[in-house]
Amino acid sequence: MIEYKHVALLGLGLISSSIAHALRRAGFDGKIVGTARSAATRQQAAALGFCTRIAETNREAVTGADLVIICTPVGAMGGIAAEIAPALSPGATVTDVGSVKCRIIEAVSPHIPDGVDFIPGHPLAGTEHSGPASGFAELFDNRWCLLTPLEGTETAAIERLGTFWQALGSRVDTMDPSHHDLVLAVTSHVPHLIAYTMVGVADDLQRVTESEVVNYSAAGFRDFTRIAASDPTMWRDVFLNNKEATLEILGRFTEELFALQRAIRTGDGDHLHDYFTHTRAIRRGIIDAGQDTAAPDFGRFVAAKLPPKEPS
Amino acid sequence: MIEYKHVALLGLGLISSSIAHALRRAGFDGKIVGTARSAATRQQAAALGFCTRIAETNREAVTGADLVIICTPVGAMGGIAAEIAPALSPGATVTDVGSVKCRIIEAVSPHIPDGVDFIPGHPLAGTEHSGPASGFAELFDNRWCLLTPLEGTETAAIERLGTFWQALGSRVDTMDPSHHDLVLAVTSHVPHLIAYTMVGVADDLQRVTESEVVNYSAAGFRDFTRIAASDPTMWRDVFLNNKEATLEILGRFTEELFALQRAIRTGDGDHLHDYFTHTRAIRRGIIDAGQDTAAPDFGRFVAAKLPPKEPS
Repeated sequence: MIEYKHVALLGLGLISSSIAHALRRAGFDGKIVGTARSAATRQQAAALGFCTRIAETNREAVTGADLVIICTPVGAMGGIAAEIAPALSPGATVTDVGSVKCRIIEAVSPHIPDGVDFIPGHPLAGTEHSGPASGFAELFDNRWCLLTPLEGTETAAIERLGTFWQALGSRVDTMDPSHHDLVLAVTSHVPHLIAYTMVGVADDLQRVTESEVVNYSAAGFRDFTRIAASDPTMWRDVFLNNKEATLEILGRFTEELFALQRAIRTGDGDHLHDYFTHTRAIRRGIIDAGQDTAAPDFGRFVAAKLPPKEPS
Repeated sequence: MIEYKHVALLGLGLISSSIAHALRRAGFDGKIVGTARSAATRQQAAALGFCTRIAETNREAVTGADLVIICTPVGAMGGIAAEIAPALSPGATVTDVGSVKCRIIEAVSPHIPDGVDFIPGHPLAGTEHSGPASGFAELFDNRWCLLTPLEGTETAAIERLGTFWQALGSRVDTMDPSHHDLVLAVTSHVPHLIAYTMVGVADDLQRVTESEVVNYSAAGFRDFTRIAASDPTMWRDVFLNNKEATLEILGRFTEELFALQRAIRTGDGDHLHDYFTHTRAIRRGIIDAGQDTAAPDFGRFVAAKLPPKEPS
């Protein structure tokens, strides 16, 4: 059961609009007050109607709230914490949905007043779409939400926030913030950087036209383009704020890539075959853990509902 | 209209079983004779029933065929061409579905007798699944099939093969073999190598457990695991047989990756933001060209049909 009565959503993008939709699906009957820096986004969200009310400022949005969720790019969170601090209600919980945790804790926690709990969080959910119209109630279903509570935070407050995420469909776990940042460098940050790089390379190549890259993308490349279509501001902030772990995993990645490159150059087919066999098992684990569909090609054939072609 | 009366499928995996299913969907009423090296695969295909007949050997399968499609890993194709050469019918067309073209032409064409056309081909279609049970009739719908005909091949023979692929649902284009190999290095071979590498890194990391990698994969990594679950033998042969283009594109990739790595290290947010903005457009091009779905996350939410969780 959700114990909060007034949820403030700071930032009105994919994650916060999905939180609002999932709250309504869960039968939440409290207030959802949202705000965003840009007037256009606030107007769009107001028209979409997933909030009870749209506030003009962050400070107005958090006034009276017992749960404040910061849903902006990571780089903006410190400034927002400073701005809202005087308006936070005693006993309120402040959380966030940022993809890095150590730097957010450094930036946000100094501003949090006594009597307010700051419990950093990260729902591992998203799509390549962004903005207030991109949210949907199912986004968090069966996905993990990681909480990285600070030492000394009361268990009851952590449990209250965990129950909230469960009501939205998530599974919940807690983790040390720096371990979180390392794990996410592996499962998210470096994969995104690599995808951005590969798409950039394809787009730049003078000897391959853009229409060739586009038309022949189904051979693998199009999966990278989905990831590389993610929000640029969000991802800039992720890399600037998870520098150490990203660079560490990138180092491991290039080391392995060079070993495979060498195997190609020297014609070492056994090395390649062994490596490619090994990686197949992890896919099975992800499907067994309910984190992806076993349908071929992510079930695109279902999703796209391509009209069958007439035989010629 | 399909002009062939007897199609031989050498190799019985994802591509050849999909060809058979798509032929039947197109109303093809000729013979489909398939064979595979392994007796177990031949038995499985016989039980699945998508061929008119399963032959014991490649030579037996091509006897009387007017279209022979070599659907094995690239490395096996030269030996198969030598084996079938004496049994090929005058006027027959031999083609293949391999992901590289120059090396296949070198390996296969010396064996092709006078009066038989060898027209190399490559349907840009596949999934991460393999084997005779993984095929389905829709695999080629709206996907490109690239033909790389040799100089001197009669236009009528090329058109006959193009019409065949169109009847299976494909779009058809012709291309120079070495340009094909460069384009595919960009749109397929290097993306696969990178995905294999990233999954290998994740699997190897002592400081991140396998269950963490699996559970938290939805943040981006799971897209890589799908690609890295592709058939190891097929991909070993691709890299060994498209060495030059793969190494060239890999060189470009690491150059770009190092530039982004440097931007992260030096905190150059503008460089990152510009790069990430630029790559977003290409995704739109792919969707507009009908090569992917615009549904968020490839429409996984449709495909997986996750049961809605009860609110707690």
